[in-house]
Amino acid sequence: MKINPIDWDGNHKQGRAIIIDQTQLPAREEKISIETPSQMWDAIKALKVRGAPAIGIAGAYGLFLGVRNAKDKEDFFSLLEKNFHYLKSCRPTAVNLAWALERMKRKASDEKESTLDSIKESLWKEANAILAEDREVCKTLGEIGNTLVKDKSNLLTHCNAGALATSGYGTALSVFFTAFACGKKIHVYVDETRPLWQGARLTAWELQKENIPCTLICDNTAGFLMQQKKVDMIFVGADRITAKGDAANKIGTYSLAVLAKAHAIPFYIVAPLSTFDFSLESGSQIEIEERSPLEVSKPYNLPIAPENIPVYSPAFDVTPSQYLSGIITEKGIVHAPVTKEKLASFLR
Amino acid sequence: MKINPIDWDGNHKQGRAIIIDQTQLPAREEKISIETPSQMWDAIKALKVRGAPAIGIAGAYGLFLGVRNAKDKEDFFSLLEKNFHYLKSCRPTAVNLAWALERMKRKASDEKESTLDSIKESLWKEANAILAEDREVCKTLGEIGNTLVKDKSNLLTHCNAGALATSGYGTALSVFFTAFACGKKIHVYVDETRPLWQGARLTAWELQKENIPCTLICDNTAGFLMQQKKVDMIFVGADRITAKGDAANKIGTYSLAVLAKAHAIPFYIVAPLSTFDFSLESGSQIEIEERSPLEVSKPYNLPIAPENIPVYSPAFDVTPSQYLSGIITEKGIVHAPVTKEKLASFLR
Repeated sequence: MKINPIDWDGNHKQGRAIIIDQTQLPAREEKISIETPSQMWDAIKALKVRGAPAIGIAGAYGLFLGVRNAKDKEDFFSLLEKNFHYLKSCRPTAVNLAWALERMKRKASDEKESTLDSIKESLWKEANAILAEDREVCKTLGEIGNTLVKDKSNLLTHCNAGALATSGYGTALSVFFTAFACGKKIHVYVDETRPLWQGARLTAWELQKENIPCTLICDNTAGFLMQQKKVDMIFVGADRITAKGDAANKIGTYSLAVLAKAHAIPFYIVAPLSTFDFSLESGSQIEIEERSPLEVSKPYNLPIAPENIPVYSPAFDVTPSQYLSGIITEKGIVHAPVTKEKLASFLR
Repeated sequence: MKINPIDWDGNHKQGRAIIIDQTQLPAREEKISIETPSQMWDAIKALKVRGAPAIGIAGAYGLFLGVRNAKDKEDFFSLLEKNFHYLKSCRPTAVNLAWALERMKRKASDEKESTLDSIKESLWKEANAILAEDREVCKTLGEIGNTLVKDKSNLLTHCNAGALATSGYGTALSVFFTAFACGKKIHVYVDETRPLWQGARLTAWELQKENIPCTLICDNTAGFLMQQKKVDMIFVGADRITAKGDAANKIGTYSLAVLAKAHAIPFYIVAPLSTFDFSLESGSQIEIEERSPLEVSKPYNLPIAPENIPVYSPAFDVTPSQYLSGIITEKGIVHAPVTKEKLASFLR
């Protein structure tokens, strides 16, 4: 896996976050450097860095960038609080952003008796740890998910739950990478994933880079493939999973899950524990981000609809737990029926 | 209704078919004139004129254009046969093209004892009749479909089954036009309909022209709307309906129908009798046209996927009759369960 969507260049005194500008893919693999929280906020908002785990890591580095020039401890904690709320406001649906920011804040609080420079260094190390742990977790997700994949399978995925959505390896795509690496003959159908084509632009690019056979389809073609028995299993990521197992993920995931159930096709969510939000009971409580109408009606400046046409563009939807064949986590697989009790006993 | 997607300009001796180049919509409403069968073939293939009933009319005029310069009767019937097969080959799924061409050929055969000029004139009149009848049929479809629409409804449609897909009025959209014209407060969700955006480009344009409130969505958003109980009824067109009521329509229709059933939302096909093909028993026998991969991976030259990515792009799918709440025809509504027996007794 040679994709590093987010990394740190330098040390805690002199350094910057480096991200692949995902909006330029697949045409250009361009790295940009991020040196302030507002640059990070803009990069996350514009989806230059995206994917639930990746924006957690991005948020952590963004928060560190916001405090590293603090003059004294008072200044530090004031900047920490300010940038914590600022960065958290950027995208509401994926819990990993809030999770990482809270973990960073907790770390600073734990270290509050140390020297200013030592707190700064600890915070930088915490961001590095979030990144490194994510990499390990993603490998584990792939190994665990791979136990479900049969040789000669046709798999399907939606959006990008790949290396680019994480620190590398990915969540749902980690399963495919692992299955392929251990010699299983797999073929992946890639939903293009309107409006922003993360499937076409990013997932197809990652799979091609790894030489995994894949075929691009329009989102509305998945049901027809299922009807023709051309899909054996479906794996997708998640942005937030509630206590009872309802999962927010890229818009279109819910439709896929309903179609999968109607065709008796196994449908799995692959997500690290950092994606769980036990403070919410059910999916209806998850805040769904709405994006700009122009992403739908004028994608990349292509005017595909009358001007001023009203657009409804939720970035995510919620798949109720009863549609899931299981949730694959780094602690193992929570198999259907996915219930609150099972998740609680399994994951806490 | 001020949209004339296809018409004839002149008489049978000096005249030409005039079509709106639908590939230019919604940016430009540009009319082009068609004077030879090969111009018509190209226009149909490139979707400058599209929609099952409209390509029937286009085929009829195309066939007339192919014989109008015949020197003698032998030449006439030889050109008729050649152009019949040529035009029929253009697009395989919508039966209306074959239906109209066969009707034209039958007319010529019925008139074969007349003078050459009289046969030519009869054939031209037959094409005009196909157009005029379609206009009447579409009005009737709207009136019949409207009996199902409640005031204050949220309706959803896929692709373009509107004026542009017919000689005017449309099939599914005729229902909306009629409901709105008689004062019902309706709001229409318009699936953008990838890969060629007929929903975004054409349906949204038609609804705006008639001031009918509408909202554009990505295809993958329809299921989420249904989950939120924001869709009361779904109306779509069809390209070919078999003896047992299986209906081919734009790719994505099948997914919508499965989602509608899962959410107990009424799902209707609106189609003239010319869309029925009683020679086929079931939907699996319908030939499904596959379109160019570039329509998916490089729409309007926008490179949204890695180059050379394999693409699967069926233009249509088939919705089995058990998913239909009914089929609305000019003879009335065939309500669910839609069966072969019911269709036979109702429609023949």
